[in-house]
Amino acid sequence: MPTRFELANAIRALAMDAVQKANIGHPGMPMGMADIAEVLWNDFLVHNPANPKWVNRDRFVVSNGHGSMLLYSLLNLTGYDLPMSELQNFRQLHSKTPGHPENFVTPGVETTTGPLGQGLANAVGMAIAERVLAAHYNRDGLDIVDHYTYVFTGDGCLMEGISHEACSLAGTLALDKLVVLYDDNNISIDGEVDGWFRDDTPARFEAYGWNVVRNVDGHDAEAIKQAIDVARASRGKPTLICCKTVIGFGSPNKGGKASSHGSPLGEAEVSLVREKLNWPYAPFEIPDAIRAGWDAKAKGAAAEQNWNVLFKDYAAKYPAEAAEFERRMRGELSAGWDAAIAKALADAAKAEKPNATRKASKAVLDTVAAVMPELIGGSADLGESNCTDFKGHVALRAGQFDGNYINYGVREFGMIAAMNGLALHGGFVPFGGTFLVFSDYARNAIRMAALMKQRSVYVLTHDSIGLGEDGPTHQPVEHVASLRLIPNVHVWRPADGYETAVAWKAGVERTTGPTALALTRQNVDAQTRSDAQLADAARGGYVLWEPKSAPEALIIATGSEVQLAVQAAIQLAEQGRAVRVVSMPCVEVFMQQDAVYRDTVLPPELRKRLAVEAGVSHYWRAFVGLEGDVIGLDSFGESAPAAVVFKHFGFTAETIVERTVKLLAR
Amino acid sequence: MPTRFELANAIRALAMDAVQKANIGHPGMPMGMADIAEVLWNDFLVHNPANPKWVNRDRFVVSNGHGSMLLYSLLNLTGYDLPMSELQNFRQLHSKTPGHPENFVTPGVETTTGPLGQGLANAVGMAIAERVLAAHYNRDGLDIVDHYTYVFTGDGCLMEGISHEACSLAGTLALDKLVVLYDDNNISIDGEVDGWFRDDTPARFEAYGWNVVRNVDGHDAEAIKQAIDVARASRGKPTLICCKTVIGFGSPNKGGKASSHGSPLGEAEVSLVREKLNWPYAPFEIPDAIRAGWDAKAKGAAAEQNWNVLFKDYAAKYPAEAAEFERRMRGELSAGWDAAIAKALADAAKAEKPNATRKASKAVLDTVAAVMPELIGGSADLGESNCTDFKGHVALRAGQFDGNYINYGVREFGMIAAMNGLALHGGFVPFGGTFLVFSDYARNAIRMAALMKQRSVYVLTHDSIGLGEDGPTHQPVEHVASLRLIPNVHVWRPADGYETAVAWKAGVERTTGPTALALTRQNVDAQTRSDAQLADAARGGYVLWEPKSAPEALIIATGSEVQLAVQAAIQLAEQGRAVRVVSMPCVEVFMQQDAVYRDTVLPPELRKRLAVEAGVSHYWRAFVGLEGDVIGLDSFGESAPAAVVFKHFGFTAETIVERTVKLLAR
Repeated sequence: MPTRFELANAIRALAMDAVQKANIGHPGMPMGMADIAEVLWNDFLVHNPANPKWVNRDRFVVSNGHGSMLLYSLLNLTGYDLPMSELQNFRQLHSKTPGHPENFVTPGVETTTGPLGQGLANAVGMAIAERVLAAHYNRDGLDIVDHYTYVFTGDGCLMEGISHEACSLAGTLALDKLVVLYDDNNISIDGEVDGWFRDDTPARFEAYGWNVVRNVDGHDAEAIKQAIDVARASRGKPTLICCKTVIGFGSPNKGGKASSHGSPLGEAEVSLVREKLNWPYAPFEIPDAIRAGWDAKAKGAAAEQNWNVLFKDYAAKYPAEAAEFERRMRGELSAGWDAAIAKALADAAKAEKPNATRKASKAVLDTVAAVMPELIGGSADLGESNCTDFKGHVALRAGQFDGNYINYGVREFGMIAAMNGLALHGGFVPFGGTFLVFSDYARNAIRMAALMKQRSVYVLTHDSIGLGEDGPTHQPVEHVASLRLIPNVHVWRPADGYETAVAWKAGVERTTGPTALALTRQNVDAQTRSDAQLADAARGGYVLWEPKSAPEALIIATGSEVQLAVQAAIQLAEQGRAVRVVSMPCVEVFMQQDAVYRDTVLPPELRKRLAVEAGVSHYWRAFVGLEGDVIGLDSFGESAPAAVVFKHFGFTAETIVERTVKLLAR
Repeated sequence: MPTRFELANAIRALAMDAVQKANIGHPGMPMGMADIAEVLWNDFLVHNPANPKWVNRDRFVVSNGHGSMLLYSLLNLTGYDLPMSELQNFRQLHSKTPGHPENFVTPGVETTTGPLGQGLANAVGMAIAERVLAAHYNRDGLDIVDHYTYVFTGDGCLMEGISHEACSLAGTLALDKLVVLYDDNNISIDGEVDGWFRDDTPARFEAYGWNVVRNVDGHDAEAIKQAIDVARASRGKPTLICCKTVIGFGSPNKGGKASSHGSPLGEAEVSLVREKLNWPYAPFEIPDAIRAGWDAKAKGAAAEQNWNVLFKDYAAKYPAEAAEFERRMRGELSAGWDAAIAKALADAAKAEKPNATRKASKAVLDTVAAVMPELIGGSADLGESNCTDFKGHVALRAGQFDGNYINYGVREFGMIAAMNGLALHGGFVPFGGTFLVFSDYARNAIRMAALMKQRSVYVLTHDSIGLGEDGPTHQPVEHVASLRLIPNVHVWRPADGYETAVAWKAGVERTTGPTALALTRQNVDAQTRSDAQLADAARGGYVLWEPKSAPEALIIATGSEVQLAVQAAIQLAEQGRAVRVVSMPCVEVFMQQDAVYRDTVLPPELRKRLAVEAGVSHYWRAFVGLEGDVIGLDSFGESAPAAVVFKHFGFTAETIVERTVKLLAR
């Protein structure tokens, strides 16, 4: 039987050889964390290589995602569908072994990591997911949801601000099934960290209310095992296990040095490692005994089988709950969803009074929440302002997990990354609120949701200078346009309550990526729509107001500027000018429509085009072309009442009329 | 003589009355922190209301910037040029009292705050600035740089991730003249913080190596005074003073509650506060005795006068240092700058070998650093990758401040916000590096630099899919375009070494905002240029390659795609087609050129236009119009060698030729 050290060396060899073959990559972390991984995976991790999607598996997150070869080695060795040919193809086009782990590419990869700190926050979301589902579904003796979330993290993740946000929240919520293994190797890319990172990390985490296991020798299997035992026994506190390790362990000349972090060791050094580790096998060759020592297929199948028996028992006693749980884990909406959202749409269509779209958003939530046990909302300390505090919401608190609302605190980045974890875990449709301008703080987590194709809805209120007095620090100008530029993010900027309901429907039903709602603080007019218009709003862009004769020009507007465009078009009609108004709440969805529809809304020959949006004008040039015009805002805003600011920057029906007349005269 | 409590009540009254008059704003923080502010400003703060720009003043930062009325009250009461009429005009258009403090609007406001946590990070930058200047210029007995940096912070700032980054760095660097006063009122917008914020904050800061003064009664002037004395005596550690306060102190019904945080108290409650505080004066009326108790004009003038005497003495003994110090504090470049940058440009123009623009960037730094004592560089743990580690750089370390390079650690947001502090303090031209994709992490600090009109240069390397194997998590796609959308940010994406030198010149000489350099990891061809082209590169866009006959079409390209465009134009010329290539390294600068120049480069009648950039295509539609074409990338990238990825996504000369031919055939 191979020793634990020999088992761990399989990871070291695969990592260094794959990096060497690709001639680029990060051998240091896998070689340093191999022993920790060996103990965690062989002694503790409950998973089934044959079914990476088994719902009650432990979640394993490599937050220091540059150590991807550690994960690929583990998946290959334990029996996932990741053959050695893929490891040999590390970092090559369309391989299943990209430079950083990608959950949508490789079976067994729980989340996409690389941007430091975010994996940790994803894991916090997963650990919340586990506790909330457990609180909701488990019954005495029938714990159908009962798993750990394990995280590997390095110094880089712990320097990042998001680690503070995520770990402070985890401590506050007492997520005791979250176990973080810290690769304390004293090295980051610039070298020995003492010059830039001198935190007493154990003390820092104790300050967050964590259970901390200090000074574990990360190359001593028995010590690691004991530490994980301690962690699993923790009640009321997540655990940080601080493992002292040597980066690039096994490399005689680069071990313990930054030079092993992010570059191939070089052929000569690779040979020296083979000698030192007594690993005489060829690259990518794993002796049978060692492979057998790793193989987790039988154990995994048994684990899932045991759970299946338990679940069967559960389903017999609680058929409704079992069905609901399974539906949620499949990511499907409830039977009641269609009726509930139809009601929300109908209510919104009937509304006649001016209303803020943030309030209209709450009205939708109030209507649909009851049929959405999977809904889990929250806000980064702006619940009332974001109107995320839907009727009947129940906030999570430490040890009280049977709820559907998270007070995330002032932690925008942590929030959206944790929402990614909730979505990835399964069983939830997460939404979270902040001011649109602070989407900046969370931007890379939004990008990661888009890259990972995860459903999340962002409630981004106070969406323009229309928020008024808080001034330029709080007034988004470039944000709507900037979010639209992130691939696979759908950005809705609804004109009124009805379009807000349409946007919510789209966001909840969209399973392939996140949706951002840009909502007003201030009231906007309710528009009137024909049945055709009510239907077309879901197409992202549609003719909202049509003159009696063939249009000579058209105005494209979004959000709070749509009402101004309609007012202007009416005034223009009174002057005998025929100008169409196109409401374009979601450019991405509009662009997915067929060309015939798009050309009906924006006839190619109709070149007198004016776009109106209280944000950077550049974005809209793509729609109005070189002859068109845009009323936008290309500077920062001003602190003053909303109406004053709007007028100051020229967002009035009068300006629209004036500029349209100019356009018509060209 | 008024009591300290009466002095503090002047702040309370002004804050509640101004918020009430504006009918919007945040009375809670000023009323809660009034006593702390009174002690700090009356007993400690060294400043001169008549000269808010006096270089050796203490810096005072309100990181919880929603408490702007506290700052405006202090400025008015101590004698700054901020008359009562401005306070009465709180949050109105073009007043000097916007909703959140704006350094470019109001005399005495050191930095623009509101986006939580950033003021704290700005202050860390200011405290670094003070220590570095002191280490460089002070001589025995002649400490011309010797001031404190004081910060007010609330729970919100301390929940934000950036507080971790900034304060961990401050502890590591042992910034002992940084004093942070924490408004520990247990309230954030969502209510009592226990449900979402349970950190042991004092322990957390001790873990960062800070000196912490615990449990100070924030309404007891003597206790506050003692705490600040302790802080000022700290050696080798920054200090956090934890002040227990009551938010909205003085309000019988709203004090201690979230309801006083961000809304006017209401007329009735305002009357009750007047009664409770025994403040019988009309709104905005300050009795003479109280005004006299606050007036800091004489003390401030004396302080500056003393410093002037000291500086005169210094200048007599060290005339060169004194002149250099004054030049730096004026933000002017040295006499040697013009020659040094001219040499860098000439060297770059001569280069013929392919080179990565990140390496060309280092070559510029290597050439100019010697004449730029104000240069302070750094990287978020990617020094070698970003090539920010210029020749002869000296890294700062705890207690060793005579350097010009900061190992910021993996703290992108903290880095760029600290750079804002360095710039705001004066005496520095800060630059900092990270991968372009991680500009996301720091995006709002970039926005704040732009809003505050501060000079900073961001070295953002690995600027496209051209970074290769690290894959989509690390490959920017939308970032160049997104940064261009932030008002007042200049984004340069140079095509080769020469344009890189041009970009550096522009960034260093630009005093009205930040400059982002998007630089390649991979080699790019060196272009050949005529003298006219060498000159025109500084105009942001210019004709780089012109066919022999009048162009039938033009290709606009940036960065690493310029070489492909030139190759394509040559191939097209061989096919008898006349196609111009426009290199557009900086759209913002190009758009600032006069229309005649712009029309010369992009003739309005020349409508067959193709743009090529390895990023989202949408951005370039503005230049090519509805008839034009864009070769861009509208999905995430792929992990593979750079050349493979480039080819995979169609960034080849062949594709450009093909698409241009199509365009010509239309």
